Amino acid sequence: MRATTLHGPQDIRLSEVPDPTIEADTDAIVKVVAGCICGSDLWPYRGLNDIVPGNTIGHECVGVVEEVGSAVSSFRPGDFVVVPFDHCDNTCVHCAAGMQAACTHLGFTTSGQAEFARVSQAEGSLVKTDGMPDAALIPSLLALTDVMATGWHAAISAGVGPGSTAVVVGDGAVGLCGVLAAKQLGAERIIAMSRHEPRQAVARRFGATDVVAERDKEGVARIMELTGGVGADSVLECVGTGDSMKTAFKIARPGSTVGFVGVPHDVVLPVQAMFGRNIGLAGGMAPVRKYLPELLELVTTGAIDPGLVFDSTLPLDQVADGYAAMDERRAIKVLLQP
Amino acid sequence: MRATTLHGPQDIRLSEVPDPTIEADTDAIVKVVAGCICGSDLWPYRGLNDIVPGNTIGHECVGVVEEVGSAVSSFRPGDFVVVPFDHCDNTCVHCAAGMQAACTHLGFTTSGQAEFARVSQAEGSLVKTDGMPDAALIPSLLALTDVMATGWHAAISAGVGPGSTAVVVGDGAVGLCGVLAAKQLGAERIIAMSRHEPRQAVARRFGATDVVAERDKEGVARIMELTGGVGADSVLECVGTGDSMKTAFKIARPGSTVGFVGVPHDVVLPVQAMFGRNIGLAGGMAPVRKYLPELLELVTTGAIDPGLVFDSTLPLDQVADGYAAMDERRAIKVLLQP
Repeated sequence: MRATTLHGPQDIRLSEVPDPTIEADTDAIVKVVAGCICGSDLWPYRGLNDIVPGNTIGHECVGVVEEVGSAVSSFRPGDFVVVPFDHCDNTCVHCAAGMQAACTHLGFTTSGQAEFARVSQAEGSLVKTDGMPDAALIPSLLALTDVMATGWHAAISAGVGPGSTAVVVGDGAVGLCGVLAAKQLGAERIIAMSRHEPRQAVARRFGATDVVAERDKEGVARIMELTGGVGADSVLECVGTGDSMKTAFKIARPGSTVGFVGVPHDVVLPVQAMFGRNIGLAGGMAPVRKYLPELLELVTTGAIDPGLVFDSTLPLDQVADGYAAMDERRAIKVLLQP
Repeated sequence: MRATTLHGPQDIRLSEVPDPTIEADTDAIVKVVAGCICGSDLWPYRGLNDIVPGNTIGHECVGVVEEVGSAVSSFRPGDFVVVPFDHCDNTCVHCAAGMQAACTHLGFTTSGQAEFARVSQAEGSLVKTDGMPDAALIPSLLALTDVMATGWHAAISAGVGPGSTAVVVGDGAVGLCGVLAAKQLGAERIIAMSRHEPRQAVARRFGATDVVAERDKEGVARIMELTGGVGADSVLECVGTGDSMKTAFKIARPGSTVGFVGVPHDVVLPVQAMFGRNIGLAGGMAPVRKYLPELLELVTTGAIDPGLVFDSTLPLDQVADGYAAMDERRAIKVLLQP
């Protein structure tokens, strides 16, 4: 099949690789209808993570079931499915406790930017739509496989509730979905930290009541001013750098929680400040499957449209252009059509 | 008055100092009936915190109101009061949100190991008993001023709920009160980490179902064995050292929260592990006043008896012996009678 492969820094290619196959009776093979590029794919693309040259890449996709293993009974070829980037059996002790991201059979989509993807633990992981979805819904369904569920996890972890004030640090697709999640969870005031006009526009469309373009010290001062010196009831940290985390803890009000979903890079947590001001930290890799049924309902009823984070759609053979566009922040998020 | 003063490492004395006086109309002066020594007093006593030589020490006391400022209307001379170590107005934006430890008028008891103590924000801080309490209740009332409220805060922050498994790291008075709090909040299994027989006995009396004497790697292995490889639903970190915090994160199950109340010393939080396993951190300095009405009810009805953490009672003039006994771990907690 044609699949995206990474060979070194900035060296991303569309290659011919063997089709994925059923390796365990719990697997399914999905024919990808739409895949996409994630902000976290940029870390290896930029040479900041170790890679195995030639490996396929891409952990987000939706598509049609092509084949299932003998232990998969709820899905059959032809079903349209949403594939959580983190696969789980949805029955183990951690899944049962609602932490599917720590499933004892955890697996990941590894060829989402390709023609086919293997899903381990298909029975527990997949969620199917009611028939073939309208083409217009595809971007929003695709967003559920990672970024929307991750933004939702940030908002849930940060304890966003009705009438509250939430600040979202980070204007990538996850941060924007965090705005949408905060809105859906009833936040009354939602402050998006963003200095990029196209992202500000999506943030406002998703429910941001205020946009703060300043960063670091100036950004903190502006948030404190906007919250009457109190700080935010909830902070969604959707970046994962040392600077963004510092900002998050400075704008969180005493007794609140920072919900973090950006893979941490060079982060030192301010434990003394957390103790002194009773600011908690919660979150991590999103248990996508946990949230999928609820989010799918919100998408199919039109209550949310997270697909708006895709501001670029490319055929799969232009995947390298897609990476470059995201790397240079010319695109928020790129959808790929095999 | 006679008051405990600290002059240098291990140099603790009973001295004659001026009586505290009403400095603001929100103050009250309390004649101390019982004070005590806190584990956190050992940091300056050991020379590990900066001190001002000759300053009074002691942040826990109960007693009788001697005098009140003109803005104090709910208390009058003769009232028996429990004094939260952290004073608050109980009306500011942070108090109203339940985070009295971050009150905009935050103050502290600074001469609890003395004959008299000044309470700032008396109206918001103090809680009085229904008449003069029985002498037998004094230790438990005294425990409410800090350690019991702090153990409670650890349990609440860690999300201890009915039927859950809680592990308490630390067998000081706060850790023991954490056991009592976990029991009261419905934990079904409570594992106390302690290798000191007298403390193990109190832990069991407070509701510990298991005691783990091993520490560090061996302690972690034992807890994982006891929890069937899953880890604890809630971890109460009641020490504040790097080692205890490491242990706490290793025994917490994915998706759970470490509640921390030990002032952190040399702690580096394992942000990658927290992210990868979705383990949160919450807690900090306890908002004592928030919990006082509920805890006072539990004490006066005999539902809890946190006063059992006091295994030594000394007249105030033997305060130096009390510090030495706690420093050498010969006593769990020392009650002082002026």
